[in-house]
This record gives sequence, C-alpha cells and structure tokens, in this order.
Amino acid sequence: MGFRRKLRESVERNNSLLCVGLDPDPGKMPAGISVARFNRAIIDATCDLVCAYKPNLAFYEANGLEGLRALEETIAAVPPGIPIIGDAKRGDIGNTARHYAHALFDSFGFDAATLSPYLGFDSIEPFIAYTKKETFLLCRTSNPSAKDFQDLMVQGQPLYEHVAFKALEWNVHGNVGLVVGATYPQELARIRQLCPEMCLLIPGVGTQGGDVEDVVRYGTDASGANAIINVSRAVLYASTASDFAEAARLSALKLRDEMNLFRVGG
Amino acid sequence: MGFRRKLRESVERNNSLLCVGLDPDPGKMPAGISVARFNRAIIDATCDLVCAYKPNLAFYEANGLEGLRALEETIAAVPPGIPIIGDAKRGDIGNTARHYAHALFDSFGFDAATLSPYLGFDSIEPFIAYTKKETFLLCRTSNPSAKDFQDLMVQGQPLYEHVAFKALEWNVHGNVGLVVGATYPQELARIRQLCPEMCLLIPGVGTQGGDVEDVVRYGTDASGANAIINVSRAVLYASTASDFAEAARLSALKLRDEMNLFRVGG
Repeated sequence: MGFRRKLRESVERNNSLLCVGLDPDPGKMPAGISVARFNRAIIDATCDLVCAYKPNLAFYEANGLEGLRALEETIAAVPPGIPIIGDAKRGDIGNTARHYAHALFDSFGFDAATLSPYLGFDSIEPFIAYTKKETFLLCRTSNPSAKDFQDLMVQGQPLYEHVAFKALEWNVHGNVGLVVGATYPQELARIRQLCPEMCLLIPGVGTQGGDVEDVVRYGTDASGANAIINVSRAVLYASTASDFAEAARLSALKLRDEMNLFRVGG
Repeated sequence: MGFRRKLRESVERNNSLLCVGLDPDPGKMPAGISVARFNRAIIDATCDLVCAYKPNLAFYEANGLEGLRALEETIAAVPPGIPIIGDAKRGDIGNTARHYAHALFDSFGFDAATLSPYLGFDSIEPFIAYTKKETFLLCRTSNPSAKDFQDLMVQGQPLYEHVAFKALEWNVHGNVGLVVGATYPQELARIRQLCPEMCLLIPGVGTQGGDVEDVVRYGTDASGANAIINVSRAVLYASTASDFAEAARLSALKLRDEMNLFRVGG
C-alpha cells in the first residue's frame, strides 16, 4: 500500500493529525531504560492516537551500531497500519542519493523520508522514483536560524517559496510533500496557498512553541487533511519518571483532541 | 591534534592534495569481497599517496547495520596520521544537530564532517563547537542540478556566495571549510577569491569530469595548499578485477602527480 493511502486510513482510524516524533534522548529518558524499550512503551501507549510516527535518525546514530539496532526494533514495534517517516534530511548527488534512498526505503523500510533540497533535482529524483513512498522536502523549517537562507529574496519571493514551486514541478507521481515549521504560521499559510493539495509535515508544536490552532487552520487542506503535525519532546518527556508512558498518552490525547477542535471535518 | 594541523602534516608527508573517497559500491567491486576488506586493500595501496580519506555514509547506510560495522572497520584501517572526513551532508535543528555532531565526531571519530547549510546557523553551531574538528558546508556542489537553488540570484549574487559569506562570518574558531565541486571551475575560482584562507573540499575530479589543472589553480590558496581534492570512483574502480588495489594505486599516483604539476610549491 502506498504512503498516501496508508496515511489517510490511519488519520481516519485514529481520528488524528498527530505524529509522534520518536527522538529518544538518554538525558531525558527515565534512568536505566533502553531506547528500544522506551520507544516500545511510547508506541504502545499512543498507537491508537496518532496518524504516523517519525523517528529522527540523529538520535539513533548518536549511539552508533547499538542505536541503529534500537531503530530497527522501534520500526518493528510500530503496528502495520501506521506509516513511519524516516526523518533523515539527507541530500547528496544522484549517484549517492540512490544509496540513501535504498538505505531508508529498502533497508530500514520507512514509508517516507525527509530530504534537504539544497542539491536540487538529481538529489531528490532517486527518492521520488519510489512511487509508493513519500518524499518530504525541507521548505521552511521550524528553527530560529531558518531565516539565514530560506528567507533570502529571489526575484521578489523568499527562497523557500522557490523550493515549494520546484516541489510542485517535481511531483509527477503525487508523492512529494513539504516540511514546514509550525513556528512560522504565516509562512505555513502561504505554502498551503501555493500547494493546496500537497501533504505537509509540520514539526514545531510543543517544546518549540508552535500554536495548535494556527497549525491546523493554516496547515490542513480544504478537507481538513494532508497535514501531519509532529510533536516529539512534549509527548516523549511529558514525565521523566516511571509513569512516562501514561503521561505520554495523556499528552498525545490532549494534543490530538485540541487539533481536532480546529479541524474541518475532524 | 586538530584537523588543520593533521591535514597540513599529511599533505607534506605524502606531498599530496589527493583525497580518496571511500564509497564502496557492491555493484562495482570485485565479486565476493567484503566492503571492509575492499576498503582496507584500497587504504593499504594508497595511504602514502593521499592527504585524506572521505567515506560517504550513504554507501554504508545502504547495507544497514552490517554496512555501519564496515564503516567502523574502515575508519580503524586508516593510519593515524591521515585525517578522515565523514561525508554525511547532515543538517537539522540545533537540538538534533548536537546528536549528529556527537555521532560523527565522538561515536565514529571523524576528523571532519560535511553539512548542508539550508537550516542556517543553529544547525551548524554544534559542529563548529568541536574546535579540533573541521566542518565543511556545502557551497556549490558538483552535480548538474546544483543550479536549481544554489545559482538563484539574491541581491545580485548567487545563493552559494551568500553561503560562503555566512561561512566566513561563522568561522570564529578557524574550523569552517566549504565544499565546492570541481566541475564548476569558475564558481570555484570565485569562492577561492571570496575566501582566500578557507579550506576547500573539492569533489568531482575523475568520473564526474572535473579538470585537474583548473581545480588546482583555482582551488588552492596562495601557498598552494588548503584544497582537498577528492576522487572516488576513478580510483576505487580503476579495475574491477582482482588487481583492483594495484590499479587504484596507479590511478592515485597519476592523479597526485598531475595535481602537483600545477601546484604552487608542490
């Protein structure tokens, strides 16, 4: 099953736009628990409340081979109906990009991946060629320094809008999406206007401070869908004690319901 | 010892600007040989001819955990005096970038890493904080699609020049370098002019078609140094039969000597 259908079904089944970012940080997890066990507990506690999961590879790579083994176990712990987005932000020349696509889509088996656009089309093409997988291009990111390059004006429009236009042009298989930070609601609204049917992956709600109402109003499409709203730390570390999984569930439930308050048809 | 000094010493010891890109592609390697054995043979055959090695992580990640184990063995096989550049092209928000920096510099132990600039300063800062390591920002890459975004004109200058200016501004510890493709000699000359003292990592000679004379003339600094000229496929796959290591040595020797022909003080 392709990513888009899998996502649509899990959005409906769990009545949710919430994606939980599985970014295990040993400094914030309860003492003594392994990454794989921590993630499994989070997944078990939230898998009826989310539309997707999004592990960020940095948090696994930081632990070397052991970390990547934990990533494999984490992927295996996600129930089959829920899409998993590999947040990798890769970007390399075509010959190399083929190997990254193979790593993310075949080896790890992610349903989708995030990519950096800086190298242009030939760095993206090997990913788009996997027509059942979704490729999310970084467009306007959630961090304070996003402005350093993404807001530079090119022919009267900020660079990130040029990225959005290129994404539309490259979206011949209907499997290209964009990453847009929740922390910049105006930019999000503008990108949704430019790309009315595109799937948007929207991190930045929770610890980063993005507003749920703005994100749902500006990020969803006309039918109230095609927005994946990611929260990591505010769910994972709702409690850092032994009740972390219950606290994560409560946080996820609250976020999901708050998102649905503002959602057309939610 | 810091990267810059380690590089200077290996450039002098081996009288070389040549960096060999350790990008093992099973489809091009002699049948039946493991990645770790292939790389060890390449390293043994070339380690008196290079100034650095540069494994691109995609080629290891494509093989999952086994691939990353091969990367660890490869790093261990490089003689201690030769710097190793982790070609990872990462780029993520500050909180995540810290984990990538830890993965590349502490876990793998690379002497340097490549990063994508698209997310701006806070995605780069955790890397620059490792003052004995070098951080190379993608500036003008070697691939045909580099032009899609990197050449867009911002206030009368292409985007990649803005990246070069930011790199200069962020280079407070003297450990920021730039990646500039050998396939664009005019852009390379322009970047060297803007950044006369910066260390440039220059891929694209060999299979990608960059011209050795242009690269040495335009890429080195006034003393004929601070340019790391990377060749991957033209060395690794000089022969795909059992004599691959000897063929790699001959190719590396030829490239090194050709580079020195055009090098000031070489």
